[in-house]
Amino acid sequence: MSGNAIDAEPGTVYLVGSGPGDPDLLTVKAKRLLEECDVVLHDKLPGPEIIDRLPEDRREDVGKRAGGERTPQSEINERLVELAREGKSVVRLKGGDSFVFGRGGEEAEYLAAHEVPFEVVPAVTSAIAAPAVAGIPVTHRDHASSVSFVTGHEDPTKAESAVDWDALAATGGTIVVLMGVGRLPDYTTALLEAGMAPETPVALVERGTWPGQRVATGTLETIVDARDEAGIEPPAVTVIGDVAGTRESVVEFLQNDYGAAGDAGAGE
Amino acid sequence: MSGNAIDAEPGTVYLVGSGPGDPDLLTVKAKRLLEECDVVLHDKLPGPEIIDRLPEDRREDVGKRAGGERTPQSEINERLVELAREGKSVVRLKGGDSFVFGRGGEEAEYLAAHEVPFEVVPAVTSAIAAPAVAGIPVTHRDHASSVSFVTGHEDPTKAESAVDWDALAATGGTIVVLMGVGRLPDYTTALLEAGMAPETPVALVERGTWPGQRVATGTLETIVDARDEAGIEPPAVTVIGDVAGTRESVVEFLQNDYGAAGDAGAGE
Ligand SMILES: C[S@@+](CC[C@H](N)C(=O)[O-])C[C@H]1O[C@@H](n2cnc3c(N)ncnc32)[C@H](O)[C@@H]1O
Ligand SMILES: C[S@@+](CC[C@H](N)C(=O)[O-])C[C@H]1O[C@@H](n2cnc3c(N)ncnc32)[C@H](O)[C@@H]1O
Repeated sequence: MSGNAIDAEPGTVYLVGSGPGDPDLLTVKAKRLLEECDVVLHDKLPGPEIIDRLPEDRREDVGKRAGGERTPQSEINERLVELAREGKSVVRLKGGDSFVFGRGGEEAEYLAAHEVPFEVVPAVTSAIAAPAVAGIPVTHRDHASSVSFVTGHEDPTKAESAVDWDALAATGGTIVVLMGVGRLPDYTTALLEAGMAPETPVALVERGTWPGQRVATGTLETIVDARDEAGIEPPAVTVIGDVAGTRESVVEFLQNDYGAAGDAGAGE
Repeated sequence: MSGNAIDAEPGTVYLVGSGPGDPDLLTVKAKRLLEECDVVLHDKLPGPEIIDRLPEDRREDVGKRAGGERTPQSEINERLVELAREGKSVVRLKGGDSFVFGRGGEEAEYLAAHEVPFEVVPAVTSAIAAPAVAGIPVTHRDHASSVSFVTGHEDPTKAESAVDWDALAATGGTIVVLMGVGRLPDYTTALLEAGMAPETPVALVERGTWPGQRVATGTLETIVDARDEAGIEPPAVTVIGDVAGTRESVVEFLQNDYGAAGDAGAGE
């Protein structure tokens, strides 16, 4: 990282969220930038419908390296700077919103430290949209005055648990867990131990807005079984709280057609 | 609500979020529905740039009634059913996302109870986007493993305080307060009493992505003064947590041009 390789003005890097996966839920700006930019750096999370439409010759998959392991963030940061210094306009495309567990903050810091101009293009996050298209509002006047988004996949390099499940339970609001399919048994247990009612409604929404979206529902006590029965896999969000119980009363008239046939699990 | 007034199939009601205000941050789907639907019911929150482009003859402002007071939700619900039963395709347009303090859940329940088909069109919420375009990521690997959205304007009809500021402080994550300009002194005091550090960074983002967006920054101890000095008014979000402090290191290279000239407040 030793100064500009070339003298020209650097190009702009656009930190763009793709939304949850339905191309119709791209923002107008994201769609235009994807059409007009010189190069798109992406991983798999934007989903097949968006990725497959990116022109082959202008995209780089930075999700996995040749060996199969995940590309280190430092390499992606360096590549962004490199391309910008070639004068290119670069879209860094993330699933959902770049600033919700998307490392957009780190990328912004790296770009600024290397004097590369950047623009943030906010997007529809899966944390709100996946529940919504399944008929679940993350806040509700009668049920939830707050909503918390939390990672279910803690950074193992952190000395102590970064997520305080006791405090989250005590908020009384909705809890939406991202990256939380695998550790579902751990944090449902933690929330029960924190005093949440066993009958608290819980919903898992897998591949929200993708073709083949699936929903499994249950309670804090039954959702692990519902997950296993339905075979729910990442990417999925876990919605915990009374709002998850309102789905039942609306789903018959909900017209979002993202694969309702795949619905599964207890409570359907 | 006594059955169908006419025999025809009811039209569909689309519960559509407008995003934070920049028309470029509408989703592709929202933009298309606004162009193609028979009628749009809206209030003022989508902002001038979006509202002013809605065709006069196909829109109804349901934000305020003739006298100036707010239209009761029950009247809006009834109007949605009435229009759908006339066979119309109806867009219910809310600022941000309809399901984040947007009463979309109540509208969905009412429509389902009256056998009106509806579709949910998720959107970019101001709770994420307003901080983002000001250079603040709501989560960050080094600073915040969770983010909570909370109302700063509690429902006064509720018997006890619905928001537990102690619990929110204890999460250790970012707190984003909506509808929280007026009661800023109350909840910053509550968070200090809950043990949060006085030097915790805080940012106010007013009219995020609107022309004339403004930002005021400070700490839990100084933000009320910063608000008053800058004259920050609704709509604005309050971002509380270490992420608010990262803005300083990136803002010089941030190209989002929503009125940076209006930036104000301590810490700039
Ligand atoms: C690294 S986080 C990124 C979140 C993303 N930035 C966002 O705003 O949606 C990845 C997690 O997002 C969630 N996720 C992303 N897309 C999803 C989708 N279409 N349906 C359900 N969950 C999704 C899953 O919890 C997944 O494990
Ligand atoms: C009734 S809530 C609706 C929130 C909306 N559904 C959303 O997802 O953004 C109204 C509050 O949203 C926030 N808000 C909406 N638009 C905003 C904007 N463009 N900039 C800053 N805050 C905004 C303010 O806190 C405002 O008081």
